[in-house]
Amino acid sequence: MSGAAEPDDGSGGDLRTTPRSTLRRRRDRGVQRREVVEAILDEGLLCHVGFESDDGPVVQPMAYARCGRRLYLHGAPANRALGTLADGAPACVTVTLLDGIVLARSAFHHSLNYRSVMLFGVGRRIEEPDEQRTASAALLDHMAPGRSADARPPDESELRSTLFIGFPVDEGSAKIRTGGPVEEPEDLALAVWAGQIPIEPVSGRPVPDHPHPPGTAVPSYVQRYPPRRRAVS
Amino acid sequence: MSGAAEPDDGSGGDLRTTPRSTLRRRRDRGVQRREVVEAILDEGLLCHVGFESDDGPVVQPMAYARCGRRLYLHGAPANRALGTLADGAPACVTVTLLDGIVLARSAFHHSLNYRSVMLFGVGRRIEEPDEQRTASAALLDHMAPGRSADARPPDESELRSTLFIGFPVDEGSAKIRTGGPVEEPEDLALAVWAGQIPIEPVSGRPVPDHPHPPGTAVPSYVQRYPPRRRAVS
Repeated sequence: MSGAAEPDDGSGGDLRTTPRSTLRRRRDRGVQRREVVEAILDEGLLCHVGFESDDGPVVQPMAYARCGRRLYLHGAPANRALGTLADGAPACVTVTLLDGIVLARSAFHHSLNYRSVMLFGVGRRIEEPDEQRTASAALLDHMAPGRSADARPPDESELRSTLFIGFPVDEGSAKIRTGGPVEEPEDLALAVWAGQIPIEPVSGRPVPDHPHPPGTAVPSYVQRYPPRRRAVS
Repeated sequence: MSGAAEPDDGSGGDLRTTPRSTLRRRRDRGVQRREVVEAILDEGLLCHVGFESDDGPVVQPMAYARCGRRLYLHGAPANRALGTLADGAPACVTVTLLDGIVLARSAFHHSLNYRSVMLFGVGRRIEEPDEQRTASAALLDHMAPGRSADARPPDESELRSTLFIGFPVDEGSAKIRTGGPVEEPEDLALAVWAGQIPIEPVSGRPVPDHPHPPGTAVPSYVQRYPPRRRAVS
């Protein structure tokens, strides 16, 4: 998605912070660098959208795609999270990649390795059919690079039945933990195995749907899925 | 964790709903059955905690463990999400397991397979050292079953340096999507590959920390990690 058009929203290079997005703890784990934030966003498949409803906070999982300095979200017009965003409510969108568990000699120092991005802002409803088509293609290509060239594009009725939201990649930060456990020096004498166990999402054998017409090709992104890991630095 | 003590909070068997937790769409994908909710919670490693801050909604990723009808969260006393929960603010805790991508012949019907749980409620600070130790053990055993018997337990200073929160598994629901794409009948003639690609978290080779004392055993949960998949439906 990084090759897509990047609307200039005047936010400069790296992400900005305000009091809500300034890390209060573990600042060493936090970064505003745009390339780091974008790499995490491009690797994830699910985000968690948080908003305040009449009945309190709600956190809803959702697919997304990054297109330049914007995240696209989509769903049915009756979707509560999307409707709230379309109404201009402030939201927080978080993407978390779990990279492993960290076993320390002491209970206290157990941890998880992860990379996460928290974005803060206000979304807006995508009204123009051209940008709706751009968003639809970005969402497909985020799931499987190249998919939008193969699938039947949305027709006008399908576009009307979909609520597309654009959310700014502007304010927020990444947070990253890597490596093995931190230990108290005196614990190093304990005969307790300590270290990290990496975890990564792995794809299984594709399951084709109903019979396909003769000659239907199996796309390369299905044969070898996913090449999601990217350099993060 | 399912064998742990289950405080009787009077909520009966399955999860309850109020207007905020009643599914508005795709009711067929939603379930209140406690065994389904618990299986998802027990399989995940990360939750996303949503709360309203002075500066708007925040969604923070966090480790957790289920112990009976309670989730335990923990972290530094300065952690913003935990501090907010300790103050009695309403929150939403969401756990999402991504099971695969669903490629349809039409852009419109692309989807993700997933299992998620959304819990709504008010947390409370765990004050009693005994319950703090229970929570610490549950958090370790959730990461790796049996780990709490091996690691050095938290001492009093470490307990004082940790904020433990209990959050009720009481109000909310699970939402599950499985299977291949839904298609428009006329799209079945298209020569476009369609189907699902399963995704699951897989552990890599464990990376030991600094040299261990001679004779330190490699625990079975490290040699074969993770047996996280459990029966769901």
